[in-house]
Amino acid sequence: MKKIALLHGPNLDRLGKREPEIYGRATLADLETALRAEFGTAAELHFFQSNHEGALIDEIARLAEAKFDALVLNAGALTHTSVALRDAVAGSGLKTVEVHISNVYRREEFRHHSYLSGVSVGVVAGLGFEGYHAALRFLLPA
Amino acid sequence: MKKIALLHGPNLDRLGKREPEIYGRATLADLETALRAEFGTAAELHFFQSNHEGALIDEIARLAEAKFDALVLNAGALTHTSVALRDAVAGSGLKTVEVHISNVYRREEFRHHSYLSGVSVGVVAGLGFEGYHAALRFLLPA
Amino acid sequence: MKKIALLHGPNLDRLGKREPEIYGRATLADLETALRAEFGTAAELHFFQSNHEGALIDEIARLAEAKFDALVLNAGALTHTSVALRDAVAGSGLKTVEVHISNVYRREEFRHHSYLSGVSVGVVAGLGFEGYHAALRFLLPA
Amino acid sequence: MKKIALLHGPNLDRLGKREPEIYGRATLADLETALRAEFGTAAELHFFQSNHEGALIDEIARLAEAKFDALVLNAGALTHTSVALRDAVAGSGLKTVEVHISNVYRREEFRHHSYLSGVSVGVVAGLGFEGYHAALRFLLPA
Amino acid sequence: MKKIALLHGPNLDRLGKREPEIYGRATLADLETALRAEFGTAAELHFFQSNHEGALIDEIARLAEAKFDALVLNAGALTHTSVALRDAVAGSGLKTVEVHISNVYRREEFRHHSYLSGVSVGVVAGLGFEGYHAALRFLLPA
Amino acid sequence: MKKIALLHGPNLDRLGKREPEIYGRATLADLETALRAEFGTAAELHFFQSNHEGALIDEIARLAEAKFDALVLNAGALTHTSVALRDAVAGSGLKTVEVHISNVYRREEFRHHSYLSGVSVGVVAGLGFEGYHAALRFLLPA
Amino acid sequence: MKKIALLHGPNLDRLGKREPEIYGRATLADLETALRAEFGTAAELHFFQSNHEGALIDEIARLAEAKFDALVLNAGALTHTSVALRDAVAGSGLKTVEVHISNVYRREEFRHHSYLSGVSVGVVAGLGFEGYHAALRFLLPA
Amino acid sequence: MKKIALLHGPNLDRLGKREPEIYGRATLADLETALRAEFGTAAELHFFQSNHEGALIDEIARLAEAKFDALVLNAGALTHTSVALRDAVAGSGLKTVEVHISNVYRREEFRHHSYLSGVSVGVVAGLGFEGYHAALRFLLPA
Amino acid sequence: MKKIALLHGPNLDRLGKREPEIYGRATLADLETALRAEFGTAAELHFFQSNHEGALIDEIARLAEAKFDALVLNAGALTHTSVALRDAVAGSGLKTVEVHISNVYRREEFRHHSYLSGVSVGVVAGLGFEGYHAALRFLLPA
Amino acid sequence: MKKIALLHGPNLDRLGKREPEIYGRATLADLETALRAEFGTAAELHFFQSNHEGALIDEIARLAEAKFDALVLNAGALTHTSVALRDAVAGSGLKTVEVHISNVYRREEFRHHSYLSGVSVGVVAGLGFEGYHAALRFLLPA
Amino acid sequence: MKKIALLHGPNLDRLGKREPEIYGRATLADLETALRAEFGTAAELHFFQSNHEGALIDEIARLAEAKFDALVLNAGALTHTSVALRDAVAGSGLKTVEVHISNVYRREEFRHHSYLSGVSVGVVAGLGFEGYHAALRFLLPA
Amino acid sequence: MKKIALLHGPNLDRLGKREPEIYGRATLADLETALRAEFGTAAELHFFQSNHEGALIDEIARLAEAKFDALVLNAGALTHTSVALRDAVAGSGLKTVEVHISNVYRREEFRHHSYLSGVSVGVVAGLGFEGYHAALRFLLPA
Repeated sequence: MKKIALLHGPNLDRLGKREPEIYGRATLADLETALRAEFGTAAELHFFQSNHEGALIDEIARLAEAKFDALVLNAGALTHTSVALRDAVAGSGLKTVEVHISNVYRREEFRHHSYLSGVSVGVVAGLGFEGYHAALRFLLPA
Repeated sequence: MKKIALLHGPNLDRLGKREPEIYGRATLADLETALRAEFGTAAELHFFQSNHEGALIDEIARLAEAKFDALVLNAGALTHTSVALRDAVAGSGLKTVEVHISNVYRREEFRHHSYLSGVSVGVVAGLGFEGYHAALRFLLPA
Repeated sequence: MKKIALLHGPNLDRLGKREPEIYGRATLADLETALRAEFGTAAELHFFQSNHEGALIDEIARLAEAKFDALVLNAGALTHTSVALRDAVAGSGLKTVEVHISNVYRREEFRHHSYLSGVSVGVVAGLGFEGYHAALRFLLPA
Repeated sequence: MKKIALLHGPNLDRLGKREPEIYGRATLADLETALRAEFGTAAELHFFQSNHEGALIDEIARLAEAKFDALVLNAGALTHTSVALRDAVAGSGLKTVEVHISNVYRREEFRHHSYLSGVSVGVVAGLGFEGYHAALRFLLPA
Repeated sequence: MKKIALLHGPNLDRLGKREPEIYGRATLADLETALRAEFGTAAELHFFQSNHEGALIDEIARLAEAKFDALVLNAGALTHTSVALRDAVAGSGLKTVEVHISNVYRREEFRHHSYLSGVSVGVVAGLGFEGYHAALRFLLPA
Repeated sequence: MKKIALLHGPNLDRLGKREPEIYGRATLADLETALRAEFGTAAELHFFQSNHEGALIDEIARLAEAKFDALVLNAGALTHTSVALRDAVAGSGLKTVEVHISNVYRREEFRHHSYLSGVSVGVVAGLGFEGYHAALRFLLPA
Repeated sequence: MKKIALLHGPNLDRLGKREPEIYGRATLADLETALRAEFGTAAELHFFQSNHEGALIDEIARLAEAKFDALVLNAGALTHTSVALRDAVAGSGLKTVEVHISNVYRREEFRHHSYLSGVSVGVVAGLGFEGYHAALRFLLPA
Repeated sequence: MKKIALLHGPNLDRLGKREPEIYGRATLADLETALRAEFGTAAELHFFQSNHEGALIDEIARLAEAKFDALVLNAGALTHTSVALRDAVAGSGLKTVEVHISNVYRREEFRHHSYLSGVSVGVVAGLGFEGYHAALRFLLPA
Repeated sequence: MKKIALLHGPNLDRLGKREPEIYGRATLADLETALRAEFGTAAELHFFQSNHEGALIDEIARLAEAKFDALVLNAGALTHTSVALRDAVAGSGLKTVEVHISNVYRREEFRHHSYLSGVSVGVVAGLGFEGYHAALRFLLPA
Repeated sequence: MKKIALLHGPNLDRLGKREPEIYGRATLADLETALRAEFGTAAELHFFQSNHEGALIDEIARLAEAKFDALVLNAGALTHTSVALRDAVAGSGLKTVEVHISNVYRREEFRHHSYLSGVSVGVVAGLGFEGYHAALRFLLPA
Repeated sequence: MKKIALLHGPNLDRLGKREPEIYGRATLADLETALRAEFGTAAELHFFQSNHEGALIDEIARLAEAKFDALVLNAGALTHTSVALRDAVAGSGLKTVEVHISNVYRREEFRHHSYLSGVSVGVVAGLGFEGYHAALRFLLPA
Repeated sequence: MKKIALLHGPNLDRLGKREPEIYGRATLADLETALRAEFGTAAELHFFQSNHEGALIDEIARLAEAKFDALVLNAGALTHTSVALRDAVAGSGLKTVEVHISNVYRREEFRHHSYLSGVSVGVVAGLGFEGYHAALRFLLPA
């Protein structure tokens, strides 16, 4: 059974808690429930969130050593600023899909560039939670 | 039943015919077969491909008048150069998902900018044909 | 009697049909009626619209050979991207006025540059249909 | 009866006096005569010229307090450099049309950007005095 | 016998017809005559011109399927704006030489960049019709 | 007793008169009253406003010769365009605090750069009239 | 009673300890003492410093959930690089004033841009500790 | 006898009064005395200084109408920002030499560009008052 | 005896563990052994690695207070993005040498700029572990 | 008989000696032999190579004085950096064709700009030695 | 008696020989004659011209060692490209005036920047040979 | 025994002679002595300095033909401007280490880019003569 990690970066712990009229009331816990429901028998899913760049890098290093197969990564704002996270992904050898809940390309100019796209297999943005489902279906083809 | 169009731009008619060692041997026809198999009962799917920017704009205008609900758009290289296509999408009122088979963000600098992302709901890149499945699942939630 | 052509580029066929609360309900046909009413006896007016860059270039070549005197050109989004259209205008020898219904300089950054202004006599933007009247009055001085 | 002001910026007092082989021999006084002839019964026209940015701003403030309806503004070179004039226009609440006698988009690069276009309803450039007529017809529809 | 195509893009159909004092009175037909005279026995030459980007892409796809050996491409203004044409050339597998009649590097800044040079074997500019002869001699070494 | 001048640039004379729903109804006169109330016994306060860059420079020269101690400067739009004002401040030897009523860093890109910050001791933006109080408290420490 | 937090970012723990000839010998503790003296009865003040971006984001999330009213934020060097901190501030709903002890606009070019100004109410720079007093007076109007 | 004007822009009235340890104690009056001593018999010299851009433009227009032969122009900071002054010089037909007392090319980046150099015959910078002598010798060859 | 610290930033803990065919199998521990062998009697060496920017800043502050003499710093990817680390180094007063194992100037464009070079005495890149030896020899001259 | 010079710049003396698997084993001497064979009776050919920019400029001056008719110039890397060589060519009055053996537009960004193209009649790149033959045929029409 | 060197860079040896209708027929020898006539008794003048950057640097080093007092430098095109020449001037300790015969600021964009201005006392451009006279008068005040 | 060359570019012949208070009094001869003392028995060392770009390129070509093993290159200012030197290094096949005595990354912006780093194995800057020792130790591992 494949081992797949889903990592979330800064401020995503507050999903569903802030501005629910915009982002809805679904939380990361709801996402985990939904993904485990669809993919829980096909893969070992591991969830991790941190507001600390360093903790995310530590975790990716741990995943690499624990022989994970793939990574679904929503790094939040670090997407646009963290070369260190890029290096962690590149060095991990993990097949990575970059996911954004909103369409970052419609937002401020500084969100149009991602340091992670260049070391990821693919990118999904703006499809809400469906983006995670797409990433996992891609990583776990029938 | 929802009416969803899938449009392809320049050079995508040659999919599966050129450099099969890279892109595989699957063609647009194969894509159509696979999508009709999964979504054919849930939605009326319409496929169109052209190497002509003008023909794509004509078609989007026709779709808008035919009351289509949504658009899955892989405009190929026009993604990066066509303001006219952007205006067609924006003016059509169609809910649009931008799809790229390859991860354009890993390729030449001039492929990192899309005129279409700003008028689309979301973007999927690099997931191969799975990107179309994800777009349709997003547009046709269960 | 002078021969003057009025050319419209991509998406302008949909004028009056889309977002009427913004652009109003007047169509290109209404524009033609109004302009023929004011200038029909003073000049031979020729109207042409296409969503195809190539068709616009073909038409401009035809106008040059048919000894037209002047051109009123609203190239829509091609204004900002088409060097080929610029070359067609420059090579035609037609006295050209560039017209935009909306004030393009208040919109997205990429609409602030025109490849056509450099080969036109003048530019009118943001005055709605009055822009065409102004162009024709300029080209047909009493 | 509507009250419309026509303001001219630096160096435009010398119109008709310098380089007449290029700009012709028509002066601002000639322009006033022509515009009063066509629009004098339809609107109260007010003319003002200054080489001083501050004087133009003072005047716009005065116009706003005198309840003028609209402004036709040829700010000359200040078009490209004066944020203060932009703020004066924006703060005045006056419906403004920006006019240039020559086609500024064919001249030096630094004349391609206008601080005023973003706070104006429309822009006319390169049509000579016809630009003012167009602006007034637009502001005084039949 | 090698099969070589010579494609011309927008506005090149008017060669020899416009501004003959500058470009001379030689037409594309004259070029074809001259090239057939020199190379007609050594290679099968195919000529094609269109003002439509899409038609050029269609033709390149057709050439690839018809097993042509090489392409001499003067894409006119599309050289500087068309990523779609670049992709067509790259995907065709045709050995391509880019030709410009005039020295584009002496003209406007926007003509200094070519999307085609990066997928061509070589570039010739400014040598007039001699550029085509050079391209064919290169493609058809004795 | 210290002598401190408060200078205001273009359009600030209209404070409180325009768009009161946004800027409130307080005027420069109200500001003067409030500041004299708090600091009138601690310092000699001098107020000056002009829409003329030159008048502001004249005034700063006069202040320097009149041995003023400090300057609170809200130059309005000149902040972003006037090197001459910068030179006047630098040459005056006056300890200067730059104040903006609104948060200029949230507005258009061209308001993010100030020619004055480089010759000022400090900058306050977005705190409304409180910005002036802060500047004076800083310049008049207890 | 209002609850206001004062957060400090990287290296500000060393205030007063390093280069006292430049920054003086006052420490963050001295700042806290001074602010409590002036505002301690008017508001509940909370102080927090960290060299860790993640810890600052964690803290802002905590403040949002603890229903704080406002934030005074001196993020040090993170001001110029942290989109994640910007998102934390924006998502917290806290009314925020950005404070810098020195005039960052007189220092290196890379200190002239702040990711935080765009989500703050106002900015104070270069007034030393007086900047904090000004921020609190603004947030706690009499 | 030739008529030559020497114009000075903003802040140059304070020459010799501020920072004498840097700029020396020589004033504009001293400069006038020195130049009249060397050139007073060879040319009619006219001196003018203003901190107002508009006044400088007014003066240049007056000089043009008074049939002056040449202009020596030290526009101070307006050199770098005033398109209006450039237009005044260009429109005046006066043979112009641009003079700067200091070497502006060694100072801040924004002083390296001059709007006036493009309409002047020549430029002298950094030679102190000798620059004016050189300009006049050039304009008044023996 | 001098006290010298050697700090390593993100992902360098994985040295020797990942992609050994590229980076070799030597680890940070091997580096420590080699350096202690050559310099252990001449200096007190302190080694520290963290993936956390904040932890590196904390450590540098601690080193400054512990009166260290010098710093050898390989900040990994933070080199290119962390102004906070730059400030920590600058504020520490430690004589610093920046070391990179690979030649960062041959890699992606974003690795060509270092925020640390400006506050370091020198830089060594591309010499592998020899870079550290060079740094220590420089800091510990015979 | 026409006199034509062929100049080669830095490193081209090593042609055929280095990396023969890439550039082949043909040397400048081979090129000279081939060109003399084809054009030796039609023109006086002069060959010169130097690694010194100054020597190339000296030579071009000598050619101009020796009444040469034309120049075929492969300046190697100086193409991209030498304004002095450009000036030498422009000042020589020699009809010049710029030749590059490889397609410089496919190589590093800094090779895409040529200071020489702007003073040459035409440019040939990427056609190997055929480029020189084309240049000479162009300069020596039958 | 002061020792002053006048150095000329590439292509200036051809002064007076090429395009005399533009540059006149005066040569460097004529310049030397004129300058010796005016300044030959006040200073020891040394003239040197080379098309070789290296020779100019060698000469400047020699001048420094020969205890020259000042340098008048017209480096021609090297002005815009040679950091090495800048370093030579800076390292020589010679008081340097940069002279250009033409007004380089009216020519191509790449001639607007000088690497030498930053290490020179002053700059004279566009005054023809008068520029050299001005430089020497400045260096040899009465 | 390995053959290693040490090349120095423009102005480095003056090392130790100019500004000794900054650069010290050590000369290139001293450097040679020190390096021969440490490495003279392990390698054949060859020293060369020139102010001429061409002479450096000539020398590198000679070294390549003389089968040298490696190059230590301090090209001085040519580092930042010479593509020709880059090509010489790349074409020589010599293993190259780039050395700068000072920390070029702390100096002017134009010294932050090196054309040589991209074709060198490594770079050392700011370590004074220790940089050369490091380079040789790296090239001559025990």
